[in-house]
Amino acid sequence: MEFNDPKDKAFLTKQIQSKQSFLAIGLDSDITRIPKHILETKSNPISYFNKAIIDATHDLCISYKLNIAFYESQGVPGWQALEDTLKYIPNELFTIADAKRGDIGNTSKQYAETFFKTYPCDAITLAPYMGSDSIGPFLDYENKWSILLALTSNKGAFDFQLIKDEDGKELYKHILDTSSRWGSSDQLMYVVGATKPSYFKSIRDIIPDHFLLVPGIGAQGGSLEEVCQFGMNKDVGLIVNSSRGIIFASEDRDFDKAARKSALKIQQQMAKILESSGI
Amino acid sequence: MEFNDPKDKAFLTKQIQSKQSFLAIGLDSDITRIPKHILETKSNPISYFNKAIIDATHDLCISYKLNIAFYESQGVPGWQALEDTLKYIPNELFTIADAKRGDIGNTSKQYAETFFKTYPCDAITLAPYMGSDSIGPFLDYENKWSILLALTSNKGAFDFQLIKDEDGKELYKHILDTSSRWGSSDQLMYVVGATKPSYFKSIRDIIPDHFLLVPGIGAQGGSLEEVCQFGMNKDVGLIVNSSRGIIFASEDRDFDKAARKSALKIQQQMAKILESSGI
Repeated sequence: MEFNDPKDKAFLTKQIQSKQSFLAIGLDSDITRIPKHILETKSNPISYFNKAIIDATHDLCISYKLNIAFYESQGVPGWQALEDTLKYIPNELFTIADAKRGDIGNTSKQYAETFFKTYPCDAITLAPYMGSDSIGPFLDYENKWSILLALTSNKGAFDFQLIKDEDGKELYKHILDTSSRWGSSDQLMYVVGATKPSYFKSIRDIIPDHFLLVPGIGAQGGSLEEVCQFGMNKDVGLIVNSSRGIIFASEDRDFDKAARKSALKIQQQMAKILESSGI
Repeated sequence: MEFNDPKDKAFLTKQIQSKQSFLAIGLDSDITRIPKHILETKSNPISYFNKAIIDATHDLCISYKLNIAFYESQGVPGWQALEDTLKYIPNELFTIADAKRGDIGNTSKQYAETFFKTYPCDAITLAPYMGSDSIGPFLDYENKWSILLALTSNKGAFDFQLIKDEDGKELYKHILDTSSRWGSSDQLMYVVGATKPSYFKSIRDIIPDHFLLVPGIGAQGGSLEEVCQFGMNKDVGLIVNSSRGIIFASEDRDFDKAARKSALKIQQQMAKILESSGI
């Protein structure tokens, strides 16, 4: 497989088959949890930490999700770490800027430039509240993905996302229904929290063909088996993320080995699920 | 007035009375529109441009709103410009990070750190879709403001923000109603677009006491008079933003003079409105 293949759905499914994994590792590289020996000796601890995590895990996952908040909060060294990390991630891995951006058109255009050009990722997570013209500038990029929030993994998801309209249709279903017409399933994905497995069935009724980015297993308590039971489609259609449960499995000198062990455990579960699904 | 007064509602109203202005100037400092002579001669053109705009306009406005997308997209020099600009803005002006952030709790905590500590602003704009725990970490800061999207100024606002529930209540009203219980009107504001003046009345029925941040006059076409007619409350309760119409009034050597002229025109309209309202 060439590294400059477009990273479309077919590419993702091939990667999943070849690695027997649909794991994204979340690089939520919180500087207060990076092992002390790294903080004391490295000029850019986040860069060093991320590279060690990538060395230890890149054969077990198909994607790295970079939680931009943890870079941005560090100012310039944080952005340097983001740049270093993106350069270090092997080309065939799918990189996600978990940025939850979204604004009026001329501003979204700038955010698209940030995460598709200045810090070039394959995908970005987006907040849908401002509607079509807040997402359009991201969809204008070829071979890049927009990942819209649908049903998130946190408690606050219940505040607004499940509000029902006059016909009993929940807000998150409106988001899926309306936004899935803005682009193809080779450029749009949705965030659906693993903490809400019972919802996957009705989500698949609306968007049978889209990939879903699923946070919330591990630290947030979601079950991989349940997510797969209700959420998997013929292309697998799932990228399941774990962040803290992997990268901070140990906060000591063995952090990279512990991260590998934790990622391997999930990858082996995924391989079993893929095998029993005949994928 | 001391510069380290808490910037609460009373402070804002005093500033408005003293300057006879409730104008925020949006520093959407698009590098492709900065005058050529600055781009050719200055090491950080955005910093230089912003400082000149601030010199020319700071007596006419009460706030600068920094549209983070235009800094972020420039990478490290962009963040440097943000830092330079924040240091340069006189202390009594109200600084808004227009960032539209919002994520699960541990991540929102990082975003709060970014815009309340690393790049210390008085306020940040936030997307409400993920609910209470995505906003909480911002509200934990004393004397800082969270400005939630309610009804935005763009076309896409109609995609989801006006969806009606079983009782005919629109989504943006749910946002106002629910979120206004998360904090006080000395720490929460709402974004309401000037392009939708007829909605201000029903918004004031739900949140009579909150300040509203109003984008959309100028380049986006909203009317200041209509906004004030329906949106003003006893504390004024409005911060009206203009960005491109002021900072890019001219894209030549007279850009700062043209910006002042454009800001002055709005300030004079505001003074008239304040006078006729007896404020």
